[in-house]
Amino acid sequence: MSIEKLEQLYEGKAKRIYKTNDPNLLFVAYKDSATAFNGEKKEEITGKGRLNNEISTLIFEKLTANGIENHFVKRLSETEQLVKKVTIIPLEVVVRNVVAGSLSKRIGIEEGTEIKEPLVEFYYKDDALGDPLITEDHIALLQIATKDQVSTLKALARQVNEVLKAHFLSCDVRLIDFKLEFGLTDEGNIILADEVSPDTCRLWDIHTNEKFDKDVFRRGIGSLTDAYEVILTRLGGQKECTK
Amino acid sequence: MSIEKLEQLYEGKAKRIYKTNDPNLLFVAYKDSATAFNGEKKEEITGKGRLNNEISTLIFEKLTANGIENHFVKRLSETEQLVKKVTIIPLEVVVRNVVAGSLSKRIGIEEGTEIKEPLVEFYYKDDALGDPLITEDHIALLQIATKDQVSTLKALARQVNEVLKAHFLSCDVRLIDFKLEFGLTDEGNIILADEVSPDTCRLWDIHTNEKFDKDVFRRGIGSLTDAYEVILTRLGGQKECTK
Repeated sequence: MSIEKLEQLYEGKAKRIYKTNDPNLLFVAYKDSATAFNGEKKEEITGKGRLNNEISTLIFEKLTANGIENHFVKRLSETEQLVKKVTIIPLEVVVRNVVAGSLSKRIGIEEGTEIKEPLVEFYYKDDALGDPLITEDHIALLQIATKDQVSTLKALARQVNEVLKAHFLSCDVRLIDFKLEFGLTDEGNIILADEVSPDTCRLWDIHTNEKFDKDVFRRGIGSLTDAYEVILTRLGGQKECTK
Repeated sequence: MSIEKLEQLYEGKAKRIYKTNDPNLLFVAYKDSATAFNGEKKEEITGKGRLNNEISTLIFEKLTANGIENHFVKRLSETEQLVKKVTIIPLEVVVRNVVAGSLSKRIGIEEGTEIKEPLVEFYYKDDALGDPLITEDHIALLQIATKDQVSTLKALARQVNEVLKAHFLSCDVRLIDFKLEFGLTDEGNIILADEVSPDTCRLWDIHTNEKFDKDVFRRGIGSLTDAYEVILTRLGGQKECTK
C-alpha cells in the first residue's frame, strides 16, 4: 500500500500534521516559519522547513540506531516525513548540560555554566499558560502522567542526551540543552515524538561557542538558515538536498 | 541576664531584625507595612504589626506544643518577639491543600479546587529574580541544600501542615496554603523560622470561604486588619492586647 497524504489534522507553529490512508501513520510537513517567545516574534524564513526536516531525520535515524524508540518512520521529501501516530503527552521535557536561556534567567546563574549532572525539567505544554515550568507534583495534580511514566520520561530523556551529546561532540558541536516531546502508543508505550532540530536544541560550536540554533533568531544575531546549514553539514547532511 | 535589643541587623518588607546581647538570640519587630507582588504594591496599615506578632506567637506556641522545633522563644511586646538565631535557608517552602493564587495561574486549575495529597513547592528566595519556582534539581545546582536536607524540609513542611490544618479547622478556618522558611542552627539542625501569619497563609472561612489573609490586601477586597482580627480572635487571642 502506498502512503497517501489526506486531510490536515493540526497546524502548529513550525509543522503541519496530516492524516494518511494508514490510521497508524501521519505526515509531518515542516514549515518555513520561525517563532519565539510563545509566538510573539514571528518570521517566514525560506529553507527553514527543509533544514529542520533533514536535521530531524538524521537525528531520529541516529537515535533509532542507538535503540531509542521514536515515532520517525522515514523521510518523504525535502520538507516532509512519515511518523507513527501517538498521543502526545502535554509536557516539554527539557534536558540541560549547560546553563542557558530561561534557566539562567530563572536562577541567576550565568549562561555557559556547566551542569555536572544533566538536569531534566518539565514544562506544561499549554500556550495559553505560556508553557510554564512545573514540578512532578504538579504533573500528578494535573493527571498528565503517572509517577512511573514520569520516571520513564526522565530516563528516556537522559538516554537521548547521552546519545546526542556524544554524537554532536563528534561533529564539533556542544549540546547545551534541548526540548523533547513524547507520545503514548496504542499499546501504552512511551516513545520519542515531535522533532529534534536546531529549533528545539541549543547547539554551540565546540571551540568558539558560536550559536547554531534558534537563539540566532530569538536574539537577532545572524542568519538562521546559515546557522542551521552548519549543523546539517556537520551532521553529514547534504547542503542542497536533491532527493 | 536580661535581654537587650541592640543594633538592627536587617530590615525586610514586614519585619526588622535586631541583634541582642545574647549571640544566640534575635529581636523580631513586626512592622505595620503590607507589601505584595514583590514590593510593587505597598501600604502602611496601622495595627498590622501587632496582629501578625500576636498570631505568629500563638501559632509558634501551637507548633512547639506539637513537637515541631522552631525559632520562637517568647513574645516580648505588642509587636516584638524573641527568636533563636539561625542561618535562613533561601527557600520559600510552600504547602498547598487547595489550589489558589499563583498555582491556579500557573497550571490553569480553578482557585478553590481541593488537592488530595498536600503539595510542597520550593521558591528561590531572591527578590531580584522575583522568588521563582524551582525544582529539587535546581536546588542541587544552586547548592542551596543537600538532597537529605530537601527531604527534611518537605517532611517538616508536611508535619506543620497536619498540625495547622487541624488547628485552624477547629477554629472554623480552612488552611488553603502557606509559606514557610527554615533555618539551620549552629549544630546543623533544620528548624522552622520566619513567621506564620495571615501574611504567609491563605485562610478562608470554613462555611463562606471568606478570605482572612493577605489576599484581602493583594486583591483590595476589604480591610486587612478586620480580616486579621478575625483570625486572632478565632485562634483565641485578645482583640486588643494590653500586655
